[in-house]
Amino acid sequence: MKIGMNHGAGGEVMENLIKDTILGNVTKKAVNDGIGLDSLDDGATIPIGNQQIVITTDGHTVNPLFFPGGDIGRIAAAGTINDVSMMGAKPLAITNSMIIQEGFPEESLDTIMKSMDACCQEVDVAIVAGDTKVMESDKLDGIVISTTGLGIVDTDKVIRDSTLEIGDKIIITGTVGDHGLSLMSLREGINFESTLQSDVAPMWGIVEKATAAGEIHAMKDPTRGGFANAINEMADKSGVGVLLQDDSIPIRDEVRGVSDMLGIDPYEVANEGKVVMGVKASDAEDILKAIKKDKYGKNAAIIGEVTDDNHVLVETPVGGVRIMETPIADPVPRVC
Amino acid sequence: MKIGMNHGAGGEVMENLIKDTILGNVTKKAVNDGIGLDSLDDGATIPIGNQQIVITTDGHTVNPLFFPGGDIGRIAAAGTINDVSMMGAKPLAITNSMIIQEGFPEESLDTIMKSMDACCQEVDVAIVAGDTKVMESDKLDGIVISTTGLGIVDTDKVIRDSTLEIGDKIIITGTVGDHGLSLMSLREGINFESTLQSDVAPMWGIVEKATAAGEIHAMKDPTRGGFANAINEMADKSGVGVLLQDDSIPIRDEVRGVSDMLGIDPYEVANEGKVVMGVKASDAEDILKAIKKDKYGKNAAIIGEVTDDNHVLVETPVGGVRIMETPIADPVPRVC
Repeated sequence: MKIGMNHGAGGEVMENLIKDTILGNVTKKAVNDGIGLDSLDDGATIPIGNQQIVITTDGHTVNPLFFPGGDIGRIAAAGTINDVSMMGAKPLAITNSMIIQEGFPEESLDTIMKSMDACCQEVDVAIVAGDTKVMESDKLDGIVISTTGLGIVDTDKVIRDSTLEIGDKIIITGTVGDHGLSLMSLREGINFESTLQSDVAPMWGIVEKATAAGEIHAMKDPTRGGFANAINEMADKSGVGVLLQDDSIPIRDEVRGVSDMLGIDPYEVANEGKVVMGVKASDAEDILKAIKKDKYGKNAAIIGEVTDDNHVLVETPVGGVRIMETPIADPVPRVC
Repeated sequence: MKIGMNHGAGGEVMENLIKDTILGNVTKKAVNDGIGLDSLDDGATIPIGNQQIVITTDGHTVNPLFFPGGDIGRIAAAGTINDVSMMGAKPLAITNSMIIQEGFPEESLDTIMKSMDACCQEVDVAIVAGDTKVMESDKLDGIVISTTGLGIVDTDKVIRDSTLEIGDKIIITGTVGDHGLSLMSLREGINFESTLQSDVAPMWGIVEKATAAGEIHAMKDPTRGGFANAINEMADKSGVGVLLQDDSIPIRDEVRGVSDMLGIDPYEVANEGKVVMGVKASDAEDILKAIKKDKYGKNAAIIGEVTDDNHVLVETPVGGVRIMETPIADPVPRVC
């Protein structure tokens, strides 16, 4: 079998490749009984005393490299900072491995580095180590960046993506679909008079405020495969169902417009500055209020609750109910 | 300015790019006064209690992907395990970010994963997290892999590359030039009857034995830019000189033959399974003995000593002395 674009696009096709060819070949997948590769959580943990080191990695191949709202530097920093944050850990540092096409303009590299640095500064994260390689101009297009994030969290404060509890309220920290659809509209040339832009941003501020305000049971950032992928993965792993109110899920008008025009489900495309949380019902309003105080959380909303069903269901304003499926693959390739 | 192949090839050209465009743009380069990006050591450290987390990252673009003695999977694991080991830390885990060309055979990916896993198993290292992306067939050639390694070391046992002391003995753990020249001879098609192969291997076993046997003052693995780059970097950063005995530096006959044929200095090409150490003179014989007990250390040798000069000098068997310069760039591109 040959690797296809869908193998890197989130969703079911990718999950199968990872289970067969990657997990199947790795003998030791965890350290000191920490969270390991098998969990396919946002990150892994390594227990050390009463704390856990959280570590996570991401390769970035976003196309185009520069887009409204960000660039590959910002996404490489934010994506990894967010995966550390999703484990409940304060992000401390990232490493930065860049592979660059021969002939790439140094000015563009400079812009990318400044953007990565600015994102790290927002949440006081250091770039502690790095590596730079160059490939011939006919062997690589542009630049790819792999970042690894490291954080620390008290063992009793680790937050998983697999621990939703029945009765939990589901919170999304803002509008869905912005990143994927802004990229897609840029590629299709329909962004000329749009204000649509990527939401790429570091989420640690939101997570810090939310964890201080109440009990978060499970958390995930809805990147490749979008909100539909994240909420299904959380429900599946937790062995629960979810009932969502369709009209409570925040979506920008421009996103809805572009998604109608392109025939792309906004729930299935990547977000790069959002968090999906399952929180204790009695804490939900306090947590929501705390999130709304963050500059990236103004459009946060409670959008549903965890049920004892085994599907993710969406109730429409007129009372109909449909299943929200795990996408086969993100409809927008090379989105991060 | 446009990025050239030399910008990713070790040596002076690369150093300038990194200082200007990378270090110059990063605001926060270290955590809790640990070793950070500025040091350009093999890895960074993050102090936590009386210990240090060691973290290091490497992107791998080796060409070809499969070569005598290893493949990109083995090199991606060993390279990162070795950088953690060079800080004196026991490697615990690596992360694995792979970017794959659309159409890449799944069987090759399977071979690469098996090879990465086997290397990790040799030194009991876990693969705890990963990420997989796919790029279109005309945008990337083959596969690139970025691995990040994590280890732990007691604070008083961290080993730097900048702390050679005058009078130290210099040890190399085996023959130099094997990796770079085996790759180069493969590319040039002159390897048909040669037994030359890459030395790619995890070095933790050697480091563990050596540190138990005596005092190591400074340590580095001679990858891109080879032994000449590593020893010059160690001497420069330590503010000392080194005097080497040319005929004591182990080189395989095949390596010497191929390097003569291709006009490439074997001291300037990458090794992927060697360590250069500066050790306390009175411990040198004990450390050498310990290293020779390791399966990757049989050809280890004491090759010189640290002086109060400010050059790396090489004494030839007939008594001549020449300067061993820092290479401008590794003569073999895409070697790891």
